[in-house]
Amino acid sequence: MTYCLGLLMESGLVLAADSRTNAGLDYISSYRKLFDFSIQGERILYILTSGNLSITQSVINLLRQDLADGSENLQTVPTMFSACQYIGQILRSTEERDRPILEKDRIDHRVSLIVAGQFRGEDPALYLVYTQGNFIQASEETPFIQIGETKYGKPILDRAFNYHSSLQRAALCGLLSMDSTMISNLSVGSPVDLVIYAKDSFKTTHRSRLQETDPFWVTMRRTWQKSLKSAFDHLPELPLD
Amino acid sequence: MTYCLGLLMESGLVLAADSRTNAGLDYISSYRKLFDFSIQGERILYILTSGNLSITQSVINLLRQDLADGSENLQTVPTMFSACQYIGQILRSTEERDRPILEKDRIDHRVSLIVAGQFRGEDPALYLVYTQGNFIQASEETPFIQIGETKYGKPILDRAFNYHSSLQRAALCGLLSMDSTMISNLSVGSPVDLVIYAKDSFKTTHRSRLQETDPFWVTMRRTWQKSLKSAFDHLPELPLD
Repeated sequence: MTYCLGLLMESGLVLAADSRTNAGLDYISSYRKLFDFSIQGERILYILTSGNLSITQSVINLLRQDLADGSENLQTVPTMFSACQYIGQILRSTEERDRPILEKDRIDHRVSLIVAGQFRGEDPALYLVYTQGNFIQASEETPFIQIGETKYGKPILDRAFNYHSSLQRAALCGLLSMDSTMISNLSVGSPVDLVIYAKDSFKTTHRSRLQETDPFWVTMRRTWQKSLKSAFDHLPELPLD
Repeated sequence: MTYCLGLLMESGLVLAADSRTNAGLDYISSYRKLFDFSIQGERILYILTSGNLSITQSVINLLRQDLADGSENLQTVPTMFSACQYIGQILRSTEERDRPILEKDRIDHRVSLIVAGQFRGEDPALYLVYTQGNFIQASEETPFIQIGETKYGKPILDRAFNYHSSLQRAALCGLLSMDSTMISNLSVGSPVDLVIYAKDSFKTTHRSRLQETDPFWVTMRRTWQKSLKSAFDHLPELPLD
């Protein structure tokens, strides 16, 4: 399984991705699911992937191939919207090629992509691209997009994150959402790729790869667990008959 | 959708069920999903239901019918285990009758039941009965069972509940798990049926039906939201480059 997450704020973007992949519980391995197509100083563009690994890897490789020799590629598309159209097109042709063969053996061919970044002249933007190559955009009212194992990590976002959160707070929210998912689903696992982007900087503000033994990750988990315990102790007593 | 939850502790049981049912977003109604087959002072037995409403209602009605005229019924079965066997049998015959007709119209025929209680001479017990009529039992290591919309409410249980929790704490955990699910999935809704049972009392310790406007529910939500905010404020700063 996979859990990837994009958060859109007025102050920028936070992206997080786990890196565990499994084809059955006896074949678990680690793959990167966050890909950087930015030109630092110029345009910021990240793609996060979930779903059928052969299809997402094909898409990423075709996107890279076009960078070398395509007339249209992620460095020439003029807007985030056209980037998503172009990525959707590549995804459609890959699905068209592989889907019938995968379906014959009942292998799930579906994928989801998060596309996030900022192009000059535009605000930061966050998109969800579906298997079918169509896509939707996050907004102030719906400021986060999750793909993969999305449910365990949603309550903390519903409760603690919104479009006006600071970059620091959004990053903590994202990591706690990731942590909740990792606790409840063993097939979502570290290391966690984290990207923070401050609006209009056109440079990746922060990028790290957190192992489960990372001192910050360990302290964050412990502090959160302690705070939850204390939050429990401060709940009102349930009036029993 | 539905969310029902059973918690097993060394000190007893906590059960909670929402009461919203939907067949599509334009047909939402309220149904009870927690059914009491206890003989107070004698044996405690609750059934919580999720899945196809016509099938779960059939099962509950057949169980009630047998109480009046069945040679075997929930008042004559000698153990919790045999109660589950008997309930599973009723479920199997209902599925056998209705499944082919439902499948013809691609209507989901699946159901899940939680069976919880205590019989004289036994410890409190908590079972999950599947569509197929087979069942599994909760244990000290796996002390909770969820049915319906299970994912949103799982992280809080993973973090804050275990077999040694007090009845009071388990009830709060269960209500917060319900609250997280109701925030993240609009088709899970109040009123929430809550049952608390103290081991070896053979009487329902507490039973209530919480509306969203219930003063306790409102205070609990507000206190929890405030505590989460403060928990966030106490998290370590993410070290940014």
